[in-house]
Amino acid sequence: MKILVQKFGGSSVADLECMKKVRGKVEGALAEGFKVVVVLSARSGQTNKLIEMAHQWSDEPDPAEYDALLATGEQESIALFAMLLRQAGIKARSILGYQVPILTDDSYNAARIISIEADYFRSELEKYDVIVMAGFQGVTADKRITTLGRGGSDTSAVAIAAALGSCDCHIYTDVDGVYTTDPRMVPEARLIPKIYYEEMLEMASMGAKVLQIRSVEFAKKFNVPVWVRSTFTNEPGTLVTQEEDDDMMELYMVSGIAFDKDQVRITLLGVPDRPGISAALFVPLAENDILVDMIVQKASRDGITDMTYTVSHRDLKRALAITEDVCAKIEGLGVEHDTKVAKVSVIGVGMRNHSGVAAQAFTALHNADINIIMISTSEIKISCLILEEHIETAVKTLHTTFALDKQETV
Amino acid sequence: MKILVQKFGGSSVADLECMKKVRGKVEGALAEGFKVVVVLSARSGQTNKLIEMAHQWSDEPDPAEYDALLATGEQESIALFAMLLRQAGIKARSILGYQVPILTDDSYNAARIISIEADYFRSELEKYDVIVMAGFQGVTADKRITTLGRGGSDTSAVAIAAALGSCDCHIYTDVDGVYTTDPRMVPEARLIPKIYYEEMLEMASMGAKVLQIRSVEFAKKFNVPVWVRSTFTNEPGTLVTQEEDDDMMELYMVSGIAFDKDQVRITLLGVPDRPGISAALFVPLAENDILVDMIVQKASRDGITDMTYTVSHRDLKRALAITEDVCAKIEGLGVEHDTKVAKVSVIGVGMRNHSGVAAQAFTALHNADINIIMISTSEIKISCLILEEHIETAVKTLHTTFALDKQETV
Repeated sequence: MKILVQKFGGSSVADLECMKKVRGKVEGALAEGFKVVVVLSARSGQTNKLIEMAHQWSDEPDPAEYDALLATGEQESIALFAMLLRQAGIKARSILGYQVPILTDDSYNAARIISIEADYFRSELEKYDVIVMAGFQGVTADKRITTLGRGGSDTSAVAIAAALGSCDCHIYTDVDGVYTTDPRMVPEARLIPKIYYEEMLEMASMGAKVLQIRSVEFAKKFNVPVWVRSTFTNEPGTLVTQEEDDDMMELYMVSGIAFDKDQVRITLLGVPDRPGISAALFVPLAENDILVDMIVQKASRDGITDMTYTVSHRDLKRALAITEDVCAKIEGLGVEHDTKVAKVSVIGVGMRNHSGVAAQAFTALHNADINIIMISTSEIKISCLILEEHIETAVKTLHTTFALDKQETV
Repeated sequence: MKILVQKFGGSSVADLECMKKVRGKVEGALAEGFKVVVVLSARSGQTNKLIEMAHQWSDEPDPAEYDALLATGEQESIALFAMLLRQAGIKARSILGYQVPILTDDSYNAARIISIEADYFRSELEKYDVIVMAGFQGVTADKRITTLGRGGSDTSAVAIAAALGSCDCHIYTDVDGVYTTDPRMVPEARLIPKIYYEEMLEMASMGAKVLQIRSVEFAKKFNVPVWVRSTFTNEPGTLVTQEEDDDMMELYMVSGIAFDKDQVRITLLGVPDRPGISAALFVPLAENDILVDMIVQKASRDGITDMTYTVSHRDLKRALAITEDVCAKIEGLGVEHDTKVAKVSVIGVGMRNHSGVAAQAFTALHNADINIIMISTSEIKISCLILEEHIETAVKTLHTTFALDKQETV
């Protein structure tokens, strides 16, 4: 049995006309001899409407009830779409999280998938040509509905593709693939025909919000080939895949430039440089669910150092309070912060085998008169914190420096 | 454990303000020491909105998908209401048909309940003070969602009360109970404090649409005391219950006058009066799911008779076609019909032990110059088909004749 998973987001199923376009995509796959699993989000705006109601009904909506409420959005879209397919004579049925079942833990609002009952799914695929599956939702061992968090339908799609034996997964969106950087900022940005999971993870976490990051982790873990494509064209889009030995891709050092404006820098000044000081700060931050992004510790002078880190704007107030608390306890010199910063990142698996990428990036920024406040690097990424006012210049400069406007990446 | 089932319809949970009133009713029951099962319908208008969408999406919506779609209405209302209870510090959870489970057959759109897993429900009532249950929905053995048909939430409520050991069931509506007849037609109509299941069945099926008829059958079968009450007052309403030996109620012959304007008379003329002729007509009608109400066969003359029956307006076209078909086959003389008719019924278990009720009714109609077209009687009911233009006079006349505007029925 040849199976294809197709996932469509909320704007692709917003109304009857949109759904008819989606039906066209499904018919295309059927014509190629596939059995099709269609994963849908809630119709555009529906989830936000439900969230709004939940907050009218309760200051702090109960998480389990919140998920039961939100899950109606996908239930509505899959039932309607299955009707539309059957109207066209296609043997189709809808399927909900509990019907598969897609078993998750009980972290309501952001549940993680534990297992998917693929046997039942396969037996239903014997009976039906298309199964329309509710994205975003699962069920606990106790039969209560969970949701997977914003963008969770991507994860649903990749997870079912993995469960069915790593069949291809097409993620349809309103963009036509993954770009070397945000085309709204850099008109010369080009579509990347093929990108590796690791790179995509870095791109996604940096605000190139085409795919939910957990879906890419899933795809990587189970080696699911993911195509990011447009609902509105017939272009192949971007293939997200694993590295292969005979791949020529490593010739190219850099795949894309990502950026993130949602950064705040916080510095704890005059910290005594002794073991356990980092833990004293970052343990309470973690315990309060504050996601720390970049961390830099200044070289110590006279046994005293500064500790700098970044968080997103929404965590600023809580992070500051904790840091001031820690400062008092360890007798530091004070806490300062800066909200007018942004992060630019150079991403590419190629830099593993090429030296000099970092130096090239720093030089380019220097030549553009951009001061680097912090640096953090990984095997396949170099990130620089700079003043927010410089972000557009920085992205354009780096995009040109690494010839992303010219180079063919495969 | 003292358990009370409370059911609220769509207009009672239409918005946040309405739901707060409903919460007040629940708090009242909690204060009396009950664990409470709250059964809710979809918020007012929601179900109709979903039905409308289904028919935009498909000329003949797939029944299983239709039920999956409609069931979102109740899922939304119970999740919101459970949030509202928890916001007030009440230990509450929502529960869906499949979570109980409420097992039904697979007659989508009008499924029948096969069983209810009361043990799970009881164990959840140990953990929670209030369980907010989705009315109207169940699940097949194959885990697909079913709905119980219009007004099915009444049936859900009575069924769960039965499963939990015939605890009291309070059905809250926008009227304050069951009346001797429709108060919009007869201002002198009085609230009936107590009515028997059998009578209620006749009242409900006649268009006194306070309770879904199947819920009354359920209540009768499992002897569940059902109170029909208003959401907007604190009055006790009408108790629907079984007859008891020491009951004084049989002193009163008649409990109420029902009527039904949705009647069409069809007559098959000149039928040879021989065995099997009735079957020749009524078997094909039944096979086509046409619900026949009254049936009268004229006394035969010269081996020839007429066969008259009534159906509702929506079945007229199909019933006529079948009857004409039968007429041709049995060489009848023709088919005629009349849409301007209506049915009035006198109802009361008391008439079992009182002769003369029928005679009294016929005389009263005759004195009011109302011609009776057809008569059909049961143990506790006398129904007359009359011209529709006379229906208001007929109802008023019979209401006065049996002193329903004066008499205390308990």
